[in-house]
Amino acid sequence: MESAIAEHLKCPRTRHRRVEDDYTPPYPVWSARAPTSVTQVVMGCFGVQSRGPDMQGRACAALQKIVRSFALPDGPGHHDLTHFVDADGFDNMIAIAYWHDAAAHARWLATPEIDAWWRADERLTEGLGYFREIASPRVEHFETMFNTPDRMEGIGVVMGDVSGELQEHGYWGSMRDRIPLSQTDALAPSGMRAVVAGTPAWGQRVRIAGHENIAMIRSGQEWTDTTGQERTLYLEDMEPVLREGMDFLRDQGLAIGCYSNRYMHHLDAAGAPLQKSFGLSYWRSLADMERWAESHPTHVAIFGSFMRYVQALNFQLQLRVYHEVSVLKADEQSYEYINCHARSGLMNGLAMT
Amino acid sequence: MESAIAEHLKCPRTRHRRVEDDYTPPYPVWSARAPTSVTQVVMGCFGVQSRGPDMQGRACAALQKIVRSFALPDGPGHHDLTHFVDADGFDNMIAIAYWHDAAAHARWLATPEIDAWWRADERLTEGLGYFREIASPRVEHFETMFNTPDRMEGIGVVMGDVSGELQEHGYWGSMRDRIPLSQTDALAPSGMRAVVAGTPAWGQRVRIAGHENIAMIRSGQEWTDTTGQERTLYLEDMEPVLREGMDFLRDQGLAIGCYSNRYMHHLDAAGAPLQKSFGLSYWRSLADMERWAESHPTHVAIFGSFMRYVQALNFQLQLRVYHEVSVLKADEQSYEYINCHARSGLMNGLAMT
Repeated sequence: MESAIAEHLKCPRTRHRRVEDDYTPPYPVWSARAPTSVTQVVMGCFGVQSRGPDMQGRACAALQKIVRSFALPDGPGHHDLTHFVDADGFDNMIAIAYWHDAAAHARWLATPEIDAWWRADERLTEGLGYFREIASPRVEHFETMFNTPDRMEGIGVVMGDVSGELQEHGYWGSMRDRIPLSQTDALAPSGMRAVVAGTPAWGQRVRIAGHENIAMIRSGQEWTDTTGQERTLYLEDMEPVLREGMDFLRDQGLAIGCYSNRYMHHLDAAGAPLQKSFGLSYWRSLADMERWAESHPTHVAIFGSFMRYVQALNFQLQLRVYHEVSVLKADEQSYEYINCHARSGLMNGLAMT
Repeated sequence: MESAIAEHLKCPRTRHRRVEDDYTPPYPVWSARAPTSVTQVVMGCFGVQSRGPDMQGRACAALQKIVRSFALPDGPGHHDLTHFVDADGFDNMIAIAYWHDAAAHARWLATPEIDAWWRADERLTEGLGYFREIASPRVEHFETMFNTPDRMEGIGVVMGDVSGELQEHGYWGSMRDRIPLSQTDALAPSGMRAVVAGTPAWGQRVRIAGHENIAMIRSGQEWTDTTGQERTLYLEDMEPVLREGMDFLRDQGLAIGCYSNRYMHHLDAAGAPLQKSFGLSYWRSLADMERWAESHPTHVAIFGSFMRYVQALNFQLQLRVYHEVSVLKADEQSYEYINCHARSGLMNGLAMT
């Protein structure tokens, strides 16, 4: 058993973990590990927004164009294609892409044909919306967790290696304890989001500035390999509860510090749904996320459902679950929206009323 | 809103709370407050153990004798009469008594007629068991919480006053954050329980030594004033889940650090049941109690049930809930058993097998 905090990221503590050194978790989980040369990674959401079946073909073509650009030099090491319908009834397809090197991402983004495409006036007049939500946490500012060591997701794919079994999990507060910066920092938020270009509305190019220590989570599951009782448990017992929680955050999250939540389903390269999904949300602070997770009826229900699930299966799961959580400095965030509706992503709640 | 830690018990912190200073709890709770002159209190369980209806009259008479002794000088300021049936099928009636002054308790206990009665050989031959489990936490070592400020229970009755609304509640870890010693101490256990006199078995006088930082909780509820939907919710939705959790701790608690659990029901002076109950348990450490509360399916179910309950009632409860939690130094514990079965109270798990 080892700490979730990689050896080279340990430092003298000024803040304690929530558990003592003799704590033993109830079941094993693992973290992704990167070489010590990795200092800052990038998690980028490249989205296309559309409304109604008539626009879906055009939206798919736009997404394919984005995905083709990933093959250019310095492109991401891994990406997923995903889809969700937002609270306003819009389809949102997102290519979520990962780099283990922030400098490579910056070079890729500056590639003339990518930059020109993004800046072209045509983006405002195609009947589609586009967005880029780019998080680039330094390695001290995020953590990952997987219930199996053999197949990574998300940033874990590009980090390249996996830890031994982790000590810090299975208790409330373990998410925080896995983030290296928590050794010395309360991860408290400061400042406010701001609209720094455009106006959240149709036909606009909008840039949002994120404030210090916004927390982002991607929390996913794959039920491809489940069968029999386990499959039934997931689909009929657990998933409906998960969906209820996701819907709550999407529709009523702002009041409790959740700026944006998307319950995404994976698509294959041809656009067909896979048996994988994840929630992707942005929060005012890690503390707000903790408060929701620990006390809100929807997440308590999710947690209770999962506990019943793993107990019923005696911890022998074919279900794969994982998450990645970042606490982002202001300079580790970039949010841009072109011709998107005013409640899209990090614009949510910032439109003049 | 104020801290659960009374002003005169605050000290420079070496350990942080789990919440930031701007945290606001979801609903109000209160703590009992004592004058600054109170430095150490006593929570004493005075029990009579019997088996079967034939012995109940004799057991009741023994309990009445104990209760009459409370009226002697330096007796407790408050007591409750309670009953439960343990895992071995024995009736246990307990007078649980509270002193705000440990010195007064010591004088009371040394009262010749009380001391002589306890030491008399007859106690071993009456067909009854007797026990005394005495916790005497210094004021830095316990906390209380009530969902109403107008009627105290337990140690709160003798403390004499009530706080304003507390900040530290409504999140996992708030119990620890309410204990004054947690400002500077991890409350980690050390040492082991030991049989220091006799042998856990029939016909024995047994004394158990408690180890450093055993955690004790009394967590109670009163449904006297509930009506209509709320009463149904408590009796049919919440209580069965609570009972399941209590049964688990009673029957399988040892493996997770719970030395003893009793799900007690209050009796009136004539022995008739009241609409009040509480769980009374002793744990290897506060951390073990936290782990159970936060992750074990039975308590997650209790918590989920309570969250649904308060939400369904929009936080307007007639149900009264409260708890008192102590983390006890070795010198704040005294456990004695006369002619009790080997799994009684803190003897549980210590019998030679």
